[in-house]
Amino acid sequence: MSARAQRGAAQTAVPFDLKAYLTATTTRVNQALDRLLPKAGVKPGTIHRAMRYSLFAGGKRLRPALCLAAAEACGGDPGAALPLACAVECIHTYSLIHDDLPAMDNDDYRRGKLTNHKVFGEGIAILAGDALLTQAFELVAGCRDWPRYPHGVLVLDLARAAGSLRLIAGQVADLEAEGQRVSARQLRYIHECKTSALLACAVRLGGMSANCTPAQLQALTRFGHHVGLAFQIIDDILDVTQSSAQLGKTAGKDTAAQKATYPAIVGLERSRGIAARLTRQAFAALRGFGGRAAALHALAAFLLDREK
Amino acid sequence: MSARAQRGAAQTAVPFDLKAYLTATTTRVNQALDRLLPKAGVKPGTIHRAMRYSLFAGGKRLRPALCLAAAEACGGDPGAALPLACAVECIHTYSLIHDDLPAMDNDDYRRGKLTNHKVFGEGIAILAGDALLTQAFELVAGCRDWPRYPHGVLVLDLARAAGSLRLIAGQVADLEAEGQRVSARQLRYIHECKTSALLACAVRLGGMSANCTPAQLQALTRFGHHVGLAFQIIDDILDVTQSSAQLGKTAGKDTAAQKATYPAIVGLERSRGIAARLTRQAFAALRGFGGRAAALHALAAFLLDREK
Repeated sequence: MSARAQRGAAQTAVPFDLKAYLTATTTRVNQALDRLLPKAGVKPGTIHRAMRYSLFAGGKRLRPALCLAAAEACGGDPGAALPLACAVECIHTYSLIHDDLPAMDNDDYRRGKLTNHKVFGEGIAILAGDALLTQAFELVAGCRDWPRYPHGVLVLDLARAAGSLRLIAGQVADLEAEGQRVSARQLRYIHECKTSALLACAVRLGGMSANCTPAQLQALTRFGHHVGLAFQIIDDILDVTQSSAQLGKTAGKDTAAQKATYPAIVGLERSRGIAARLTRQAFAALRGFGGRAAALHALAAFLLDREK
Repeated sequence: MSARAQRGAAQTAVPFDLKAYLTATTTRVNQALDRLLPKAGVKPGTIHRAMRYSLFAGGKRLRPALCLAAAEACGGDPGAALPLACAVECIHTYSLIHDDLPAMDNDDYRRGKLTNHKVFGEGIAILAGDALLTQAFELVAGCRDWPRYPHGVLVLDLARAAGSLRLIAGQVADLEAEGQRVSARQLRYIHECKTSALLACAVRLGGMSANCTPAQLQALTRFGHHVGLAFQIIDDILDVTQSSAQLGKTAGKDTAAQKATYPAIVGLERSRGIAARLTRQAFAALRGFGGRAAALHALAAFLLDREK
């Protein structure tokens, strides 16, 4: 663990085995996704195979883990947060399938496997993304709701995070920024939309599933926001510093596509400094939760120090 | 009015001015869409211009009209159904944008105007479809709900109609049926998915917005199902019998693409007979609603007799 992460980890009283936690949550989320989504044999088989191909392509399940950890931080049962965690992962997967299309980032590989359209063709890949997006709302509407957070609130939160002012806005701004001169401020806006919004939503939905207080929800939102920004900066850094084999996807493609990135605008070292500061701010947002936020805390530290 | 439609119209006691009704509902729906969706100037402008381009490309607003008419049939206020009607139109428009893409039906024109990707490029067209799909759920979650039909029920209904077992299944089956020998039974399945599901959902949501009884909801579902099937058969017939100028889109393209259609499988006259029978079944489903279903009745008669 780096010095940065240790400074953060020192704030949690209990030692936390993140590796075991991630293994457990990943298994749990994978089982829930398998149970909640139509099986590959359900007619029409092509679309369900395509949806499952990308959904089970080895994603790290970070957003679902954050969602479950947020539920725990608020004293809730992570089991109740599970369908919401799955919904966020469906949205994340749909966005990757569409982003990889030839008309967008035109990627052949993702997590070391062929992208959806390389296996199923563009038409089915577009529809598989559409289906996962729709499935996400079915999952949220189909799970139980909570006194402070009825279905309308849950669906609205997810729809806004995924909509044309946030997740999709980020993708649009990203497309439009290619080859353009972009300020650090504009880049922060892109990252907020492209990454922070859905990540914060994952954390918020987790809190809502524990019927959290408005103050807790606000703190979780701050946490998710900062972690999301740090996460995307680290992503930009890894694209420059790691090989394709290490990443499981094409490295250096941000530079090749003349994408706006933090390292390109403020340099590598300052980017690392900003990511560390954002992570400290994320830690600070957890203060009121005490030891129950150990998993959230460890996840934030891990995201800062990850190597892929 | 044809003999077919007159037989149907004879069942409603009151004369009904459908033209005036459609003009009024179209104006109302257009105003609501304009009010409820982000303005073209909202950042990022490209995506909101692209969403609005297709949303305001002269669609006939049949699904919203059916939604409002269903609310009236159940004694409800059509104003309360308006956001739901808009949500269904967003889903319909998204499906058209994605269907028109080169990877799908590859259409350059729709309703006499260039398709979304011909104006904005494929990347933005894909994202505009995604954004409209997401917007639909935001609209449903953001509107008021009803004692029998809370937000969870409304969202679930729309998500299922639009999902991988219905609307998207229809598009997949349609793609896969091209150039294949298709039975009348398979074709009915495609039409049920591709057209009936969302059309029935529009009618159901209208009924729900009037807090309709379970029996009324069942009758509306039957009505929507039959009208949807008839609608798609008429669509197939018009593709064979009308010119591109009359349709505002490329005529004869089903035949050119070797698409499975009713006229190709059972012939033109039998297709007309089936559509008329389905419309009569739709009329029958309205019996319990009395004169309040006049608009629904007139809409079904109009859809059977339309020439584009």
